[in-house]
Amino acid sequence: MNALDELSETFSHLPGIGKKSASRIASYLLKTDRAFNIRFSNQILSLQERIKPCSICGAWTENDPCPICSDIARDKSVICVVEQPQDVSTIESSREFHGLFHVLGGVISPLEGVTPDKLRISQLFDRVKSGGITEVIIATNPTVEGDTTALFIQRVLQDTGVSVTRLASGLPAGGDLEYADRLTLVRSFQGRIKI
Amino acid sequence: MNALDELSETFSHLPGIGKKSASRIASYLLKTDRAFNIRFSNQILSLQERIKPCSICGAWTENDPCPICSDIARDKSVICVVEQPQDVSTIESSREFHGLFHVLGGVISPLEGVTPDKLRISQLFDRVKSGGITEVIIATNPTVEGDTTALFIQRVLQDTGVSVTRLASGLPAGGDLEYADRLTLVRSFQGRIKI
Repeated sequence: MNALDELSETFSHLPGIGKKSASRIASYLLKTDRAFNIRFSNQILSLQERIKPCSICGAWTENDPCPICSDIARDKSVICVVEQPQDVSTIESSREFHGLFHVLGGVISPLEGVTPDKLRISQLFDRVKSGGITEVIIATNPTVEGDTTALFIQRVLQDTGVSVTRLASGLPAGGDLEYADRLTLVRSFQGRIKI
Repeated sequence: MNALDELSETFSHLPGIGKKSASRIASYLLKTDRAFNIRFSNQILSLQERIKPCSICGAWTENDPCPICSDIARDKSVICVVEQPQDVSTIESSREFHGLFHVLGGVISPLEGVTPDKLRISQLFDRVKSGGITEVIIATNPTVEGDTTALFIQRVLQDTGVSVTRLASGLPAGGDLEYADRLTLVRSFQGRIKI
């Protein structure tokens, strides 16, 4: 196996990249600017050294606390709870939320050995207890595990006096009733709002 | 932009990778084995140093001449002419061809400024002239440019006495008549064979 096949093989291990795409990308890198490859190579090499979880919210960051936790313009009375660090950038790109985040690091899933103590739930409890928080919005995925985790967090926080909410679940915007699965339809009925 | 966004941005410049896939891959690399990233990074950095075109056939190789040109078991009387170095591995994976290769480095395309002298056609002529070749199989793509290039090579070689052939064009195996485009159908009629 030569250097080109080796690189192509490595690319094919990345999520969403098949053998054909991997070999196409490797060929592209062979013909591209040398400077691009040097930069690319350095970015991969330094990634894990430069990015760490924020000690407050758990999001990935180069500086601790992260830019969101240390932004004085953010609304510090609301915390949005998400499963994974990458969910933070998804929500940020919607520009709808201006509060703080809290990354759980997963969802409760006894089958996969993920019990509540393996998630950053006690840290969330501590943040709420330290005061100043009025609402916790739970943005775990609308799955069985995501719902279970949301319910668990609601129970943990119920005596703190904070308002615990959950993102609406229903028909995706621009979607078509015909293509909605049954559970999404059920949820869109249950969560219907007055117009 | 932090290290994660920078790497994600770089991935999104690669062929076939969109913004969502790029960010998914960057997150994957953040959580993966450190050893994987070190190897990946080195493979990208050393790629262009290690891989060079074979001085005989023009295929990408670490050793010159390439493993195919220097393989004594290959049939040295047949040369398969392809557009790009990556076409060599595509044909090799079919295990149908056991001769040698010749990479043109493109196809004749006056609109894009690719004239015959920019391709490795004279090198092909020299290889044929040096003797021992009985057949040249032209495997350029079945496009207007590929066909033009095939015809041009046929004319260049016509006085050498070598037999010049072209890969069959027609319905793809496992395909459906209904989905064949007009030109493919025309070609499958023109190239029909007696059964």
